[in-house]
Amino acid sequence: MPTQWSKTLIPTLRQVPAEAEVPSHQLMLRAGMIRRLGSGMYDYLPLGLRSLRKVMAIIRQEMDQTGAIEVLLPTLQPIELWEKTGRRTAYGDNLFVVKDRHNRELALGPTHEEVMTELACGYIESYRQLPLTLYQIQTKFRDEFRPRFGILRSREFQMKDAYSFDMTTDGLNQSYRRIYDAYCRIFERCGVPYRVVEAEAGPIGGSANHEFMVPSPTGEDLILESDKDNYAANMEKCETAVRQSNPDGPPTGVLEKIHTPDCLTIADVCKLAKIKPKHMLKSLVCHGETTGWVIAVVRGDHELNEAKLRTATGDDVMLAADDDARRAGFAIGFVGPQLGKDRNDVQIVIDFDAMQDQFWATGANETDYHVKHFNWHRDVIIHLPDRIKITDLRNAIDGDPSPKNDGGVLRETKGIEVGHVFKLGCRYSEDLGLCVLDENNDRKALVMGCYGIGVNRILAAAIEQKRGHDQNGIIWPASIAPYQVLITPIKYEGEVKETTDQLAMELERNGHDVLIDDRQDRPGVKFKDADLIGIPVRIIIGNKALKDANVEIKARTAEKPTLVAITSVTAHVMELVSLT
Amino acid sequence: MPTQWSKTLIPTLRQVPAEAEVPSHQLMLRAGMIRRLGSGMYDYLPLGLRSLRKVMAIIRQEMDQTGAIEVLLPTLQPIELWEKTGRRTAYGDNLFVVKDRHNRELALGPTHEEVMTELACGYIESYRQLPLTLYQIQTKFRDEFRPRFGILRSREFQMKDAYSFDMTTDGLNQSYRRIYDAYCRIFERCGVPYRVVEAEAGPIGGSANHEFMVPSPTGEDLILESDKDNYAANMEKCETAVRQSNPDGPPTGVLEKIHTPDCLTIADVCKLAKIKPKHMLKSLVCHGETTGWVIAVVRGDHELNEAKLRTATGDDVMLAADDDARRAGFAIGFVGPQLGKDRNDVQIVIDFDAMQDQFWATGANETDYHVKHFNWHRDVIIHLPDRIKITDLRNAIDGDPSPKNDGGVLRETKGIEVGHVFKLGCRYSEDLGLCVLDENNDRKALVMGCYGIGVNRILAAAIEQKRGHDQNGIIWPASIAPYQVLITPIKYEGEVKETTDQLAMELERNGHDVLIDDRQDRPGVKFKDADLIGIPVRIIIGNKALKDANVEIKARTAEKPTLVAITSVTAHVMELVSLT
Repeated sequence: MPTQWSKTLIPTLRQVPAEAEVPSHQLMLRAGMIRRLGSGMYDYLPLGLRSLRKVMAIIRQEMDQTGAIEVLLPTLQPIELWEKTGRRTAYGDNLFVVKDRHNRELALGPTHEEVMTELACGYIESYRQLPLTLYQIQTKFRDEFRPRFGILRSREFQMKDAYSFDMTTDGLNQSYRRIYDAYCRIFERCGVPYRVVEAEAGPIGGSANHEFMVPSPTGEDLILESDKDNYAANMEKCETAVRQSNPDGPPTGVLEKIHTPDCLTIADVCKLAKIKPKHMLKSLVCHGETTGWVIAVVRGDHELNEAKLRTATGDDVMLAADDDARRAGFAIGFVGPQLGKDRNDVQIVIDFDAMQDQFWATGANETDYHVKHFNWHRDVIIHLPDRIKITDLRNAIDGDPSPKNDGGVLRETKGIEVGHVFKLGCRYSEDLGLCVLDENNDRKALVMGCYGIGVNRILAAAIEQKRGHDQNGIIWPASIAPYQVLITPIKYEGEVKETTDQLAMELERNGHDVLIDDRQDRPGVKFKDADLIGIPVRIIIGNKALKDANVEIKARTAEKPTLVAITSVTAHVMELVSLT
Repeated sequence: MPTQWSKTLIPTLRQVPAEAEVPSHQLMLRAGMIRRLGSGMYDYLPLGLRSLRKVMAIIRQEMDQTGAIEVLLPTLQPIELWEKTGRRTAYGDNLFVVKDRHNRELALGPTHEEVMTELACGYIESYRQLPLTLYQIQTKFRDEFRPRFGILRSREFQMKDAYSFDMTTDGLNQSYRRIYDAYCRIFERCGVPYRVVEAEAGPIGGSANHEFMVPSPTGEDLILESDKDNYAANMEKCETAVRQSNPDGPPTGVLEKIHTPDCLTIADVCKLAKIKPKHMLKSLVCHGETTGWVIAVVRGDHELNEAKLRTATGDDVMLAADDDARRAGFAIGFVGPQLGKDRNDVQIVIDFDAMQDQFWATGANETDYHVKHFNWHRDVIIHLPDRIKITDLRNAIDGDPSPKNDGGVLRETKGIEVGHVFKLGCRYSEDLGLCVLDENNDRKALVMGCYGIGVNRILAAAIEQKRGHDQNGIIWPASIAPYQVLITPIKYEGEVKETTDQLAMELERNGHDVLIDDRQDRPGVKFKDADLIGIPVRIIIGNKALKDANVEIKARTAEKPTLVAITSVTAHVMELVSLT
């Protein structure tokens, strides 16, 4: 049945709400799709809910298609499960924890690895039951420090989360690929342009994972893509090809101490000493269980990537606490790599770009002093030749060479994360005892993957992307638009009303969902609202055209309407819907 | 597409789980529909989820049919809203309250009157937008003191809640009737037998309401129904016709004090003094703001109904705290209505059955003493004739006369509450400022109704009801069965497999959902599981019958299968499904 505008709730707003910073937030509020109840809490009004449920239906179809099995797990989770996996601490303040009347703590699920693994423990007894992938679509909770951007970063959201169970890593790789491919189809069908980028694991852990990103200037994540279109990664993960290093050039002068009191940052030193950041070395004191002390050196205008440092050292090396480093003799804030022979307890890991033959300034290893005319060969290499490693150690930036080594250049864009696939390995199955007999009757921990999609985020991202809106409002893809067709009768009465109702019924019978703007407002008001809520196909019905048995049809993105004979409306609509 | 048993997750159990007391809990666990995660927290496995979603679909259709508009509100609710309506206190420990990282309190919604009213405040500006009914289907939370009976009383559950907004009480009555009728259709379609009973309001407040109850011996609610089938009410609400009282008979003897130390209950006194409870008077000390002290008197074997006491006094009279009553001179535990002239500050309200001409024992108004041979006329009426009221003051019981005064007799049954409709009036709109201009441009608080359905409870109630199960398992109504048809090939291979697959596809095309038991287990195991999970129609395919182009069809409730030609299977299934 078609819906009449006056019989549903579409409270459009003329004004841009002051609270909203990004287009999707502004437009969803203005189009009457959502309403703010409190910080990071949104009511879904009928238009918003319709789109949300369309996204869910697409996800469900594609997940079912992969053979994944749908379940529904509780929001409330015994905190003990989170303690067993150490994630209570890892999640920290992001985890909502509620006490029940008996003073027992319960987590409000932000994700369900623990609960799903617990469930699998109950039912998987043999390798014959594998592979198995379980999924759900459900409300998740995250106590964001700063909820913002409307439904892009809210404290309560809809998520599709899936978990795969396999006997072997090969099995995991196959399950992973199946879901990965399903995700591509899901985002395709939802009409959001996306990139698959390599990514580092968050608190979920795991060895390999990809993010599905919708490029958008308002995205919160940085993506680097090769201009050869064969590589993309988020900034934390992005590698580069080997950049040239050149440690052996002659000094630019005698090592000269400069007094730099109260200089807490690279910027302070640069200002005082009139040196550009790209001529400074940033030397960060780190420590690892087996490696011991590590000085990580990157250029003053670059950022250390700790994951790369860990890869380079093969150890869980982390930034040292200031006090610990001071006690070990480091002049924190004034450290340089020229430590001298007697500090052969230190490993020095240097980024390619920091290991150059050029003018350098760096810390003097003495509080309140830096040095200039630092030279790698003279000041470090001849003292500690065996303690040095040159590698890719910093976050990639726009212009870096692609790690594919094919001459591609990395370009920086921003993206909205809408999906994430992880290879978890045995982390959860080991912590929670999910072990199963294999073909040889050996007990083995299952190899798991997990796979998430932010359902609400797909809506927001569909609007945020370049073609998702214009100055007049939202531009929905037909697949997730609240309605596919909006009929706007100039005046909903007499013959116009009859034609409207007939056409609406006919289109509904053809599988389109139709909204009729039956309000008594002026056409200008109705047209403005139509643009705002962004229904892909609009049919305008007025007395004048109707005399010749015509109506006007306008795609949301078309400049002008087209005059179409009533008899060919359905064919026309079908075509327009299939194009959006 | 048909589902194969081996490709989904149906972990049936042979044993009755020790934790489960009632049939629905036992059978849902055994049929692999749900799994317990913790106290009052259940995973829904594929079969459970399928049934749950079928119930939701029926509810959604019928609600949409009434013109109600679907929205989706957050689970997290600002606690301030609950404080504004005073419900934070009223809900007490049943309300889950979580603190966010900024130490602000949020309620986990057990219901959404406040949030829905707040939403309406934002959008309803004129009487022209009314009537309006909004609804949602959503997870609710309730911190039960003792979660039990599986999904019948869990801490997290699915609820359909609807809220109507009208200008006038007449309007409310119409909205109420529309939803009431829709509820009847919903329970009808879900195949659960139900009674509509009059009920008292809980903490939600409101002036009139009905409960929808599914009769079941395991129900937690008592229902009284007239044997004339024209009246039903829950115990708290149920009235009776005027029962005869007879205050004027002569004493049965001289008032005689008996020593009753350490007798804390009626039962203790009866045991000690060898008196039957129906010969005792229970005198309860109550107090009301305007009425002052009230002694409510019911027979020792009856229960005071406080709502009836409030109706009788026209005041918000409640049981007095022991300490307050002691300070006012009452010998708590030993009170009797024979207070004497000097206590003319006390009103005495007496239930019909307690105001009889018979032998009575009661408290002696002196600690550790009771009296026997109490006589109403001699000991009370001649002293305080103006302070006495005789009325219906107790909970109704089996055998009471129907309040319809038509000779009907009330019979007691137990029921499971699956739905509840309330006339709220202006309680919430006044507290939260939901005022709208009416036709005369006067600002008026809107008149609200609210309407709930326990989605999960419908599943449990469908099983608990008399025809919902037998000793072998569940008996689903076709409308909410996880699948309508189960095909059990004796051996899923060769011609049997081909026929199975073909029939399954054909039935799916006809709109039935089909589960194929493709497991390699013995037929006996498969048949046992089939009975357990309770699919309405079972088709058994084996080589023998297949030679004559036949299969066996068996309704879940039939004693034996029927031999049916393959060509007429679809017609047969259609008929069986329409009958269940």
